[in-house]
Amino acid sequence: MTDPDWLWAQPLGPVAGWEEATHALALRRLDHLTKPLGALGRLESLAAQVCAIQSTLAPAIVAPRALVFAGDHGAADRGVSAYPSAVTAQMVANFLAGGAAINVLARQHGLGLTIVDAGVDAELSPHPMLIGAKLRRATRDYTEMPAMTDAECREAITTGAQIARDAIDRGANTLVLGEMGIGNTGAAALLMHGLTTRPLAQCVGRGTGLDDAGLARKLALLEAARARAPGVTDPLGLLTEFGGYEIAMLTGAILGGAAARAVIVIDGFTVTVAAALAARLAPRVPDYCVFSHCSAEQAHRSLLASLPARPLLDLDLRLGEGSGAALAMPLLTAAIALFRDMATFESAGVSGEATSP
Amino acid sequence: MTDPDWLWAQPLGPVAGWEEATHALALRRLDHLTKPLGALGRLESLAAQVCAIQSTLAPAIVAPRALVFAGDHGAADRGVSAYPSAVTAQMVANFLAGGAAINVLARQHGLGLTIVDAGVDAELSPHPMLIGAKLRRATRDYTEMPAMTDAECREAITTGAQIARDAIDRGANTLVLGEMGIGNTGAAALLMHGLTTRPLAQCVGRGTGLDDAGLARKLALLEAARARAPGVTDPLGLLTEFGGYEIAMLTGAILGGAAARAVIVIDGFTVTVAAALAARLAPRVPDYCVFSHCSAEQAHRSLLASLPARPLLDLDLRLGEGSGAALAMPLLTAAIALFRDMATFESAGVSGEATSP
Repeated sequence: MTDPDWLWAQPLGPVAGWEEATHALALRRLDHLTKPLGALGRLESLAAQVCAIQSTLAPAIVAPRALVFAGDHGAADRGVSAYPSAVTAQMVANFLAGGAAINVLARQHGLGLTIVDAGVDAELSPHPMLIGAKLRRATRDYTEMPAMTDAECREAITTGAQIARDAIDRGANTLVLGEMGIGNTGAAALLMHGLTTRPLAQCVGRGTGLDDAGLARKLALLEAARARAPGVTDPLGLLTEFGGYEIAMLTGAILGGAAARAVIVIDGFTVTVAAALAARLAPRVPDYCVFSHCSAEQAHRSLLASLPARPLLDLDLRLGEGSGAALAMPLLTAAIALFRDMATFESAGVSGEATSP
Repeated sequence: MTDPDWLWAQPLGPVAGWEEATHALALRRLDHLTKPLGALGRLESLAAQVCAIQSTLAPAIVAPRALVFAGDHGAADRGVSAYPSAVTAQMVANFLAGGAAINVLARQHGLGLTIVDAGVDAELSPHPMLIGAKLRRATRDYTEMPAMTDAECREAITTGAQIARDAIDRGANTLVLGEMGIGNTGAAALLMHGLTTRPLAQCVGRGTGLDDAGLARKLALLEAARARAPGVTDPLGLLTEFGGYEIAMLTGAILGGAAARAVIVIDGFTVTVAAALAARLAPRVPDYCVFSHCSAEQAHRSLLASLPARPLLDLDLRLGEGSGAALAMPLLTAAIALFRDMATFESAGVSGEATSP
């Protein structure tokens, strides 16, 4: 059902790759800084990536904004989560009150923070930090029917892209993407399975804390859901069958952000699934993605490897909310500061730049 | 030759463990914050560690100071490094001029920065950022004789402890430890080998960038050095035979910092060797250490595992200077901010704290 006509309409636009020439120049500059060749490791490739995205050798992270997409899942209370669906709305209230992990990290790292109601199963009062984009109070139960309609899937993607584009139009050149949705690691597992053809048992994990029995129950439920629509493997079909509204909007935000040449910082398993969906729709999407961390959700590591992507952090996080992405922001700003501000061998009068070992 | 009489004299003092009761209370508080149990992963143990070090449930990082110990090695120009010894003094000049990686990171993360001349093979002019503590212009060549005298070893350790204590007395409760010394991964390899009894081939690495032939040359040189003093396995004996002045001062700084209950952020391979030496002299030293990263120096991973310690970052860094330790500082401050500032389930009205999966 992929339909480029609507998919690449504004505000998405096509996703061009990063600028190869700038990337090469950035790598060359790194070799002149006062350090052994390659000694800054992963930070060097990160700095060069941002240069290539921004088409400049004077890269900068400007007005970075965290966008946390929240939605509920019709199947959530059938035993795929350690927590009841009501917690999604309660956690959104916690975000708006400033008490959640992402609030603390956004304050610490100077991130703007916007929460998007993509489909929370509650009526949420207006709030300056909240974008109301609810498509429905929770998706339908994917064990019984498609989670959303085709039209809802398209609307979610274009809405996500529009939200990303709006943030960029207001000055952000970096988006930090997170999610909140009880049950959404179950949906993400089904999407990963459909995209990668890895066995569902390798795509499922404990989410917020299932025990062994809970994990077996979750797997059985997901197997049953997949049996309802076994042949679907295309991104839009998968989102329609199993997706959450927040996952579809994240997919759109990643596509829209990449089309606008923003740096896109990807959080945990669920956001990485959205990135994998977006990359299937537009192959140059990963050029714009910084994969912030590998979570404790077991499938995350193999999903990252399949992209392929190597995350910056590996701290056993399994919180979501964009928390891992926010934690990686200082590495991103450090990579850029080192690239811009370190002395060169020549300027510092340090010998050895061309020393052969 | 371990001699508690001088070793535990002021300014070192004995190293008591962290406060177990506070550690337990901190872990309990973490379980009440608005997140699934354990969802902040490694940041939870980090926050609890700082609470236990500081004996408080209101932990804080105050006036953190990076101390970079620099020294030269008599054996350095025999083929154990990709760079000539002269680069040590040139890089110290670069530190004092503000152009090195550690300068950029210290500015970004609000760290005070002090460079210590432990034994640089050059006469350095006085500078506000520089502590002149030179014991000698470079150690002796450890392939021919002990690198330092017993008296020098003791003086280096007590001087390092005094420098740490002075920084703490001036308000720092957190020390970020780094080093600069062409050839010091060779000395560190000999020290690791002596401490852990792992084969030298597993303790040696490419340092700042040796190729395969250079690595083989370095290993042969270190084997010859070890053959000169094969039986030495105690920390002070090893430092005397093979150590650098900067490594001995780092060992002292770690002992002195731990005795004063500071948080001590450990950088790469060479500083980790100093931590291993300090831990052998005072077993509770690791309570105070935050192991910031696993470097690209191959032996670092197995040395960390032997302690045992699990580093926060794994970014293929191999720069030294305290750069990896500085990069980990935002994780430390984030862990503390999350611990202090997140809402509890009760305060936020979020259900599910006691939900059994």
